[in-house]
Amino acid sequence: MAKKVMKFGGTSLGSVERILHAANIIKKEQGQGHQLIVVVSAMAGKTNELIGHSNLISKKFNKRELDVLLASGEQASSALISGALNDIGIKSKSWLNWQIPILTEGEHNNARIVNMNVNDINNYLSQGGVAVIPGFQGISKSGDITSIGRGGSDATAVAIAKIFNTDSCEIYTDVDGVYSSDPNKVPVAKKINKISYEEMLELSSLGAKVMQSSAVQTAMMYDIPLNVKSTFTNRDGTKIFNQENIDYTKTVTGVAYSKDDAKITLIGVEDKPGVAADIFEPLSKNQINVDMVIQNISADGKETDLTFTIKRNDKEQAVSLIKNNTKMKCKNIQMDDKVSKISIVGAGMVATPGVTYKMFRSLAEEKINILAISTSEIKVSVIINENNTMEAVRKLHKTFNLD
Amino acid sequence: MAKKVMKFGGTSLGSVERILHAANIIKKEQGQGHQLIVVVSAMAGKTNELIGHSNLISKKFNKRELDVLLASGEQASSALISGALNDIGIKSKSWLNWQIPILTEGEHNNARIVNMNVNDINNYLSQGGVAVIPGFQGISKSGDITSIGRGGSDATAVAIAKIFNTDSCEIYTDVDGVYSSDPNKVPVAKKINKISYEEMLELSSLGAKVMQSSAVQTAMMYDIPLNVKSTFTNRDGTKIFNQENIDYTKTVTGVAYSKDDAKITLIGVEDKPGVAADIFEPLSKNQINVDMVIQNISADGKETDLTFTIKRNDKEQAVSLIKNNTKMKCKNIQMDDKVSKISIVGAGMVATPGVTYKMFRSLAEEKINILAISTSEIKVSVIINENNTMEAVRKLHKTFNLD
Repeated sequence: MAKKVMKFGGTSLGSVERILHAANIIKKEQGQGHQLIVVVSAMAGKTNELIGHSNLISKKFNKRELDVLLASGEQASSALISGALNDIGIKSKSWLNWQIPILTEGEHNNARIVNMNVNDINNYLSQGGVAVIPGFQGISKSGDITSIGRGGSDATAVAIAKIFNTDSCEIYTDVDGVYSSDPNKVPVAKKINKISYEEMLELSSLGAKVMQSSAVQTAMMYDIPLNVKSTFTNRDGTKIFNQENIDYTKTVTGVAYSKDDAKITLIGVEDKPGVAADIFEPLSKNQINVDMVIQNISADGKETDLTFTIKRNDKEQAVSLIKNNTKMKCKNIQMDDKVSKISIVGAGMVATPGVTYKMFRSLAEEKINILAISTSEIKVSVIINENNTMEAVRKLHKTFNLD
Repeated sequence: MAKKVMKFGGTSLGSVERILHAANIIKKEQGQGHQLIVVVSAMAGKTNELIGHSNLISKKFNKRELDVLLASGEQASSALISGALNDIGIKSKSWLNWQIPILTEGEHNNARIVNMNVNDINNYLSQGGVAVIPGFQGISKSGDITSIGRGGSDATAVAIAKIFNTDSCEIYTDVDGVYSSDPNKVPVAKKINKISYEEMLELSSLGAKVMQSSAVQTAMMYDIPLNVKSTFTNRDGTKIFNQENIDYTKTVTGVAYSKDDAKITLIGVEDKPGVAADIFEPLSKNQINVDMVIQNISADGKETDLTFTIKRNDKEQAVSLIKNNTKMKCKNIQMDDKVSKISIVGAGMVATPGVTYKMFRSLAEEKINILAISTSEIKVSVIINENNTMEAVRKLHKTFNLD
């Protein structure tokens, strides 16, 4: 007998049929004697509908009330799942944020879970009940409803796994795991059976939408093994856990890409201490997120070139901020918004020499020009011409035997 | 400066535009220096949508979870109204059932409000804030969400008016008041400016859907004046209050009708004590609501005929229950499901002789046959052939100068 968290995402609860299907998955698990805490998202589309209403009312909709509004979505799906369980003979109860309670700290719309009371729910579990908890929400010390950011149901699941000290945390979603690349775009992409937290984080930050990054971070911090699996198939999912538990047979776990980048190069920047800070200060103040930054040492010790990438949407504002920046000077500004970022991710990379070289060589074989490079311990990213994106992804997939 | 309850029904909040419109009505009231507690229903259609989901999951959806589910509707509309108020510069906060709290007693889906904490909200009002409260819901002593039955937002409004001792209770709805008959069907129907609780109750029970009956009853019990008005026009609405405050110029206030009745007559029932109880016991046990009951004294002291009306939907079950009832005997059962009930209502009736006669005479003038009669202090109802319904309503409207 194990104690488990089972988290169901919005698409897994997207219709009455799907809710009944999820209830049957829960029943099957319970039949094996497990104690179950079920965490649910709002039904698919519901959160967007509510946000749509709030946006039509005000572009700056009151943040406290936005949390009250959005929390109604998970409240409804909790009741529906719990009602469905009762209907098929499973003792079950929904427990809302204030009924548990789930205490949070921080701002409205972006709070974080700090604690929750476990006694009542543990009692209920030991009496054979299934506790259903709405994800994404909690209450503040002053008793207001708070939310923990979009996709926050994953974070709720992980926090519950930690605080209730469960044996596992299962994330039921509409894909059957984490893939080596986007399976919709790269037909040869393969499901990854095991992946480390770090790799998962790199893949998430590169656009894999399977799990919310901050939830993976929390799981990593407290070493909570995750299991991402499909609500709609019986196949094994992807286990996300500590690197040490992974026996690496592959150096590279996945290939990710993003197509909404723009690259800016500042030519002839004065090479002196503090110049990078001067360049990025106005961007940071204007909430422009800078992704890759590449700066070479200068040949003459006086001038250097600096390249960085940003989201394509921010390009005009970024160029204008740089032009109006009186703290720094450069001879020329080049902007290229027809670029994409290709990354290979793998925790085994650090112990395997030549991975970076192998990546560059295989891109060269396809005559794909590399415009910028950035590396971390478990990731190598390159910026290339946007037109070559899928070609590069497929080639790297093959190079690192991910097919 | 007055303290007011303003209650907005579902159609008044049926879209973002209507929510903004309601917010502006509230702003206008606040601009006159009033302290305001706003009570809201779920957006039009929302409760039906949620009930639809629950019905698809189970015909006997868990009652506790149904309350959790439905409460999400008013929670969302509270947040939307409060957000809209903040957007137009009005300090406002939503207060959910558990945040106030609103304590209820009784069963899930059918609880009643017994108390609520007034201190926090009164403080907030005195600081110029508008409190927005979801109608229809409360919490039980054990901390579960409860609901107070369909249309329960009216009951919440009246309970708040009572417990907060407000100066008035305004019910904003999609009609501009209570009419002498259904204005959609009887074009000459006129809006009633003043009506007593009792008359309103009779009209409600006869199908006028303007306000929920139990809310009117509570208002009557505590003598809370109500004002029903349209969200969409500026016209005066209908004031509902104590009979003593009404200067009756008319004997009859309104004419109501219902078309979904069936009439059952038991011929040759043994005339002995307890026979009526024996007849109605199985109907009551099967939740069949008996409306009018007419029994004459028997000519010979041995046998009598007994007529009663029920909802048309229940007719087959009722006839079958009577046939299988071993406790009573009758010679014959007649059933007529092509009947309708016409009622005249008026608190002035009791002091005006001849009203009943006048009603019967005017129906006779139209050659409308009366199949059964039932009277109370402020109401006379007759059962007639369904085909004559509108003819009768129009005639009575004219007879009692309601046009």
